[in-house]
Amino acid sequence: MKKTDVLIIGGGPAGIVAGLTIKKMKPKLKVTLVKKEKGVTILCSEPYALAGIVNPKDIVFSDKKMITSTGIDLVIDEAKKIEIKKNIVLTKKNKIKFKKLVLATGARPFVPPIPGKEMKNIFTLRTIKDVKNIRQSLKKAKNIIIVGGGAIGIEVASLLNNKKRKITIIELLPHLVSGAYDEDFSQDVENVLSDAGIKILTNESVKGFLGENKVKYVLTSKKRKIPADIVLLSIGVRSNIDLAKSSGIKIGKFGIWVNKYQQTSVKNIYAIGDCAQAIDFITGKPTPSQLATTAVFQAKVAAMNIIGKKVKYDGVVNPAVSAFECLAIGRVGLTEKQAKENGFKIIVGRAESYNRYACHPNTCLVKIKLIFEKKTKRILGGQIISGEHGVAQRINLLSLAIKKKMTAGNLANLNYCAHPELTPLPFAEPIVMASESVL
Amino acid sequence: MKKTDVLIIGGGPAGIVAGLTIKKMKPKLKVTLVKKEKGVTILCSEPYALAGIVNPKDIVFSDKKMITSTGIDLVIDEAKKIEIKKNIVLTKKNKIKFKKLVLATGARPFVPPIPGKEMKNIFTLRTIKDVKNIRQSLKKAKNIIIVGGGAIGIEVASLLNNKKRKITIIELLPHLVSGAYDEDFSQDVENVLSDAGIKILTNESVKGFLGENKVKYVLTSKKRKIPADIVLLSIGVRSNIDLAKSSGIKIGKFGIWVNKYQQTSVKNIYAIGDCAQAIDFITGKPTPSQLATTAVFQAKVAAMNIIGKKVKYDGVVNPAVSAFECLAIGRVGLTEKQAKENGFKIIVGRAESYNRYACHPNTCLVKIKLIFEKKTKRILGGQIISGEHGVAQRINLLSLAIKKKMTAGNLANLNYCAHPELTPLPFAEPIVMASESVL
Repeated sequence: MKKTDVLIIGGGPAGIVAGLTIKKMKPKLKVTLVKKEKGVTILCSEPYALAGIVNPKDIVFSDKKMITSTGIDLVIDEAKKIEIKKNIVLTKKNKIKFKKLVLATGARPFVPPIPGKEMKNIFTLRTIKDVKNIRQSLKKAKNIIIVGGGAIGIEVASLLNNKKRKITIIELLPHLVSGAYDEDFSQDVENVLSDAGIKILTNESVKGFLGENKVKYVLTSKKRKIPADIVLLSIGVRSNIDLAKSSGIKIGKFGIWVNKYQQTSVKNIYAIGDCAQAIDFITGKPTPSQLATTAVFQAKVAAMNIIGKKVKYDGVVNPAVSAFECLAIGRVGLTEKQAKENGFKIIVGRAESYNRYACHPNTCLVKIKLIFEKKTKRILGGQIISGEHGVAQRINLLSLAIKKKMTAGNLANLNYCAHPELTPLPFAEPIVMASESVL
Repeated sequence: MKKTDVLIIGGGPAGIVAGLTIKKMKPKLKVTLVKKEKGVTILCSEPYALAGIVNPKDIVFSDKKMITSTGIDLVIDEAKKIEIKKNIVLTKKNKIKFKKLVLATGARPFVPPIPGKEMKNIFTLRTIKDVKNIRQSLKKAKNIIIVGGGAIGIEVASLLNNKKRKITIIELLPHLVSGAYDEDFSQDVENVLSDAGIKILTNESVKGFLGENKVKYVLTSKKRKIPADIVLLSIGVRSNIDLAKSSGIKIGKFGIWVNKYQQTSVKNIYAIGDCAQAIDFITGKPTPSQLATTAVFQAKVAAMNIIGKKVKYDGVVNPAVSAFECLAIGRVGLTEKQAKENGFKIIVGRAESYNRYACHPNTCLVKIKLIFEKKTKRILGGQIISGEHGVAQRINLLSLAIKKKMTAGNLANLNYCAHPELTPLPFAEPIVMASESVL
């Protein structure tokens, strides 16, 4: 039996950052990380690897670079059971005794029980093997069906889109990206993708796959029979909670239940990243937050608590950005719809501006929407669509404003910079304009 | 004699935004704007117009679009004297009686008394006429001397640089851009420009110009005699204070003295923009802040006070960005040097990251330096150099953090977003890394 101070199950960003942080703060602690496969795949880059923009081998970092070079002990194995009272994890090949355990078991693509889903050329996108298999099949594929119009669905659709391919997105809900954006922003995304030649079917679900060995048609709830050479199921992910659940650890609505210190219902066992339930900063309610940046932050919080520093996580505002067709879209906090569902009376500020001075070439519209609580004018959320330049950092700025409970007045007073190639005109910063519009 | 409720002298961003804001809030007030020439030139775009990246005619907006369409009464004329007790401005052609007066007289390029400075092909860059004259002379120019290595100097040098031209920057101080950046960042700028083939002479001043009608050589303090077809004097600007001064209005160290309401020493006379002295938010001391974004904000503050809303301006942190050689550099708050000069004990956080995921093509280094007060870890300033993408909005985020008196801990807890093409890797946001480095 192996012994370690801290045992981490999972080698995604959560597990790695937890290990690194502990080794950095307390180099003498023995930290062991167990994961199933060699190499660290950068999941967000997979759509780009599919499209050949990045070489698939470049998005897999070596375990040495990412893990072992920092003094973490790496074990390629699979955790099967936690014996909570004994502080032991049983793996396929061994037993490991721990003082503290970190569950960073991640998530896996959700695959609904659609008849025919086992056929060839029906894929999910998660592992580097998925990337390689899809790339292989793409060589001869003309008709590509993407089931699910979330952030990954629209990125893959946009990246794979070319004149030789016919791409269709099938979305169950009335709009694309509607979990993260309001209808008006979803419509902008739909218009851009449609204009690029991508077919969008909303309010429609997949009822079955036809074909023999290989998929040939997709059958939909609207009785369509769509030719398909490749189907990509991009319906979201589900937390990997089986190990925790089967060992008696409490499960929440959206993954393993944790407190503000990332502790599970068992005091010396922590859960972080995609497998753990997050808490929304604004509403205080459980929320899914399967973002790498959430994983990284939760990992740091868990690590600090493990080494004895009481650090609380005050919750997520889920800042996220996606790129498609030379545009980017970003969001943070609550959407208008989510704010209303959570009982907020709101006022919405809007503005349109440009990513650089309007008189310069290659300017691109920036459209922004800010959601404020009506009475206090406290900012609750924001959405931006524009050229790629500037979206992510504006979302970060809004994230900071939300977490610091700033108001429209605070944002209207932003002391911003201006430059003809790098920002809008000096009087046209969209965050300021949208904030002023509600004062 | 003409009569008006509010008289604005000057048609730059300060004057225009003051007028627009007043008309928007109180459309019935009569607002009259006096300026010398037709058209509104976007000054920051002038380097791009010199280089032909923007057509010079596209950086001059019409008075109709910018001014008169909003109900402001425009007078093309020149203010000569203010009769303070009578509330009258004497112009070249007329007299205008006002209830409130706004001085937005701007600034003009500083030209030191160097022998020979009257020769042809020695230019400053401020008006659209300057742009046209320089462009005309550029056609045949091979040797271009830029005197002054500030933000405009380096941008113009970089934009005009091509294989046919020999460009030299002459800077009096030991480093380029040293008013706004610390030495380490200045050195990066110098290295990039040198690598691009631009000659940089620091610790050197211009002692004279040789030539007949037209400039032919520049003589320097180090006894150099440098061939020159064009000389651009880019040594900074000086506030236009003559009108205020000659009328008995108090002048500060860096322009017309104003209080926190942008009021001058005369109660119903306001001063805004490049002609007015600004107050540094952190030190509370007078500071030059000749930025269009400062002008816009001061204009809004003056406008609100003019219509009867007591709004205070809490001072500038001077966020600014410059672009050169496909890079951008940005700064906000105090530099390390300025912080020390102002008596702060400081600690500096540094980080290097990339503008996108390190495994993606066309990544570019992001280098950041954050200056914190040692004891409180309150952020005092920041400097960033990187590819163009993301610099301006990170500077804005830091600006917000400085004005909200945030600490390194607050910034280390930033809930940021990640995307392979739009941000660094999920664990590599440079603001967070630099903040963590001082915790």
